[in-house]
Amino acid sequence: MKQSQLFTKTRHEIPTDEVAKNAQLLVRAGYIHKEVAGAYSFLPLGLRVLSKINNIIREEMNSAGGQEIYMTALQNPETWQATGRWDDKVVDNWFKSELKAGGQVGFGFTHEEPLTALVKHHISSYRDLPVFIYQIQTKFRNEMRAKSGLLRGREFLMKDLYSFSRGEAEHQIFYDKMKEVYNRVYERLGIGEKTFITFSSGGSFAKFSHEFQTIMPSGEDSIYVDYDKKLAVNEEVYTDEVLSNIGLDKNKMQKVNAAEVGNIFTLGTKFSKPLDLVYTDEKGATHPIFMGSYGIGLSRIMGVIVELFADDGGIVWPESVAPFKVHLLSLDGGDDELQKEAEEFYISLCKRGVEVLFDDRRDISAGEKFSDADLIGIPWRVVMSKRSREAGGVEVKARNGAESTVMSIEEVLNKFNS
Amino acid sequence: MKQSQLFTKTRHEIPTDEVAKNAQLLVRAGYIHKEVAGAYSFLPLGLRVLSKINNIIREEMNSAGGQEIYMTALQNPETWQATGRWDDKVVDNWFKSELKAGGQVGFGFTHEEPLTALVKHHISSYRDLPVFIYQIQTKFRNEMRAKSGLLRGREFLMKDLYSFSRGEAEHQIFYDKMKEVYNRVYERLGIGEKTFITFSSGGSFAKFSHEFQTIMPSGEDSIYVDYDKKLAVNEEVYTDEVLSNIGLDKNKMQKVNAAEVGNIFTLGTKFSKPLDLVYTDEKGATHPIFMGSYGIGLSRIMGVIVELFADDGGIVWPESVAPFKVHLLSLDGGDDELQKEAEEFYISLCKRGVEVLFDDRRDISAGEKFSDADLIGIPWRVVMSKRSREAGGVEVKARNGAESTVMSIEEVLNKFNS
Repeated sequence: MKQSQLFTKTRHEIPTDEVAKNAQLLVRAGYIHKEVAGAYSFLPLGLRVLSKINNIIREEMNSAGGQEIYMTALQNPETWQATGRWDDKVVDNWFKSELKAGGQVGFGFTHEEPLTALVKHHISSYRDLPVFIYQIQTKFRNEMRAKSGLLRGREFLMKDLYSFSRGEAEHQIFYDKMKEVYNRVYERLGIGEKTFITFSSGGSFAKFSHEFQTIMPSGEDSIYVDYDKKLAVNEEVYTDEVLSNIGLDKNKMQKVNAAEVGNIFTLGTKFSKPLDLVYTDEKGATHPIFMGSYGIGLSRIMGVIVELFADDGGIVWPESVAPFKVHLLSLDGGDDELQKEAEEFYISLCKRGVEVLFDDRRDISAGEKFSDADLIGIPWRVVMSKRSREAGGVEVKARNGAESTVMSIEEVLNKFNS
Repeated sequence: MKQSQLFTKTRHEIPTDEVAKNAQLLVRAGYIHKEVAGAYSFLPLGLRVLSKINNIIREEMNSAGGQEIYMTALQNPETWQATGRWDDKVVDNWFKSELKAGGQVGFGFTHEEPLTALVKHHISSYRDLPVFIYQIQTKFRNEMRAKSGLLRGREFLMKDLYSFSRGEAEHQIFYDKMKEVYNRVYERLGIGEKTFITFSSGGSFAKFSHEFQTIMPSGEDSIYVDYDKKLAVNEEVYTDEVLSNIGLDKNKMQKVNAAEVGNIFTLGTKFSKPLDLVYTDEKGATHPIFMGSYGIGLSRIMGVIVELFADDGGIVWPESVAPFKVHLLSLDGGDDELQKEAEEFYISLCKRGVEVLFDDRRDISAGEKFSDADLIGIPWRVVMSKRSREAGGVEVKARNGAESTVMSIEEVLNKFNS
């Protein structure tokens, strides 16, 4: 894409209404726009990042046997009354509204109830199980506070998968598999090294649930990490009993701040019993279906990545989620011939399938172009200038590297061939 | 995909709470599930259709120079107060909710106001214009009635594009181009022949706006069509004066029912003036930006396609939006060898990139498989049975054709090669 055609502009000043680093940088670089506190619109660059995160997660969910659906935000009170969760005293973050035609509707903050009610129309026999259903969909949560940018939203994109099994044993097989799937997801998103599976409170059907926590100073949670075993324990369940239960040594645990980037949860029959979701076994007897839930906050992941890797110059994207792979800067200094060469180079890269943002703007100084490139954070910066041409080609620099290298056009085309 | 693994099931009985043909068929075939009146969840087959519709529209919007974004549903009252549209007396279909932190929010029924406010942060000069911005996003409308299935939703997916131009002349160039783009969209969606550009009321800045209306008996609108000129006039502006204005002959006009599948609208400065969206021209003078809007209801299109092509047996999808291209039915009659052959054939098709739903279910009669295939409506049905094998291969039948043909496996692989 040509930067001259991109409608968003970067800005130097830090937005005064943002305290979180992720929101400050993403707003300044033109990735997002705040509509109300905790609700951000995604601009062209931001939507590209979000789509890449979605696609990585979609691929992994499909590989794990997930079937994708897309549920409504609008919620029928009756379905939630069955589990007691319609009540504002039980759930304190509902958005609700009156229907003009009479009655109320809610805006989904999660989807256990409606999905449990939905699958009743399709699943009844042991032959239908196990089944794994997921969606990438917008949640609404009426949070009291929303000052963390993309880390805690009133409206945000989430992947939620639900498993339906014939019992605890069958459930456990999938649950354990999802731990590996989640690890692979964070690896691919570029945050694998900093992300730890974390024991946390389990509810009625399991001793523990598991969170995936990414270590970072601005994280809202406190966890204790055993770096050797790559295991962590959430502060909320950090007791001697729990440690000995899991086989962790208190002396090896280090307390750190972290942000939750996912969780997996054994639901058991908590939803299937009140909503009467049962299956008939081989002998004709009926049993409630055993459920699990598996969530990842997608827009939150985008915020975490920014917090984790940003430096003084701006955002630093891992290649897998970057809006473009290459940021090509043409510093033509008014030289039409050079601008034409840059344009041809841009077209060559595009033809080879390389995703390029081409800073073809002619009324912008070299300094501003460099500073924009740092702020936007595309992994590879390629500069074409009179100087680089005299040195034999273009200057290539990794966003997170210190040195630039002069390479010939041919070498660059080969390097970024995808 | 193997049908034995698809979690949805078809049902014979017509849902008693649905009066619209599109909803009855889509629910019975397992494409959608009603959550509340006018809000449907999309199940795996339904989501596949919706994604294909989205992708066709996304490709065409990108080709037309559109930049894709994704705005929030949550709306800030202040932005809407500027145009007077926050008031329930002005807009009668708002969903609104109280913020726990104090104040109100709305759920967007359209996005002119927030987008106008958003682009103010990025666009200020004549050099930034024209620009075309679109999204594929969920709208919420608090309709009094919602009995038409996907044709009129309280929650539905929409593509809305907005154009920002330096004045009416520049606007008109894009507006006229979009007429062609829209025609191409409907062609690709398979409803081009039945869809007519239709003059309708224009508001303050233009004599007319243009709707795209698809002729069908269950359509909610009445239009007058000149089939030779491929032009129509909405009943609401159908006067002698308008006809002579457009150059249409009253004697050639035929009155028909139709469903609106898109509209394009000259907004002028209706939103830019109250929200103070201006640009500076070459001489330093400021002017309000001239806007247009261009909408297509995506889930509505899915409903229209069903209404238009369905027959007594069920849904009939055009190939471009069908969830799969081929429905492979294995009628093995308990013959393991035959089932194995069908499975190998399925794998061969998949390897060539053909999208196949493979009805590998073994506990289902041939009659039920045929009836399911008709109901689901995949364009090509391929049957592998003892009989077809004896006849030299497999039986191939178009969903909208009467006759089936016996073809060799090799011939079928070549026919569907994509």
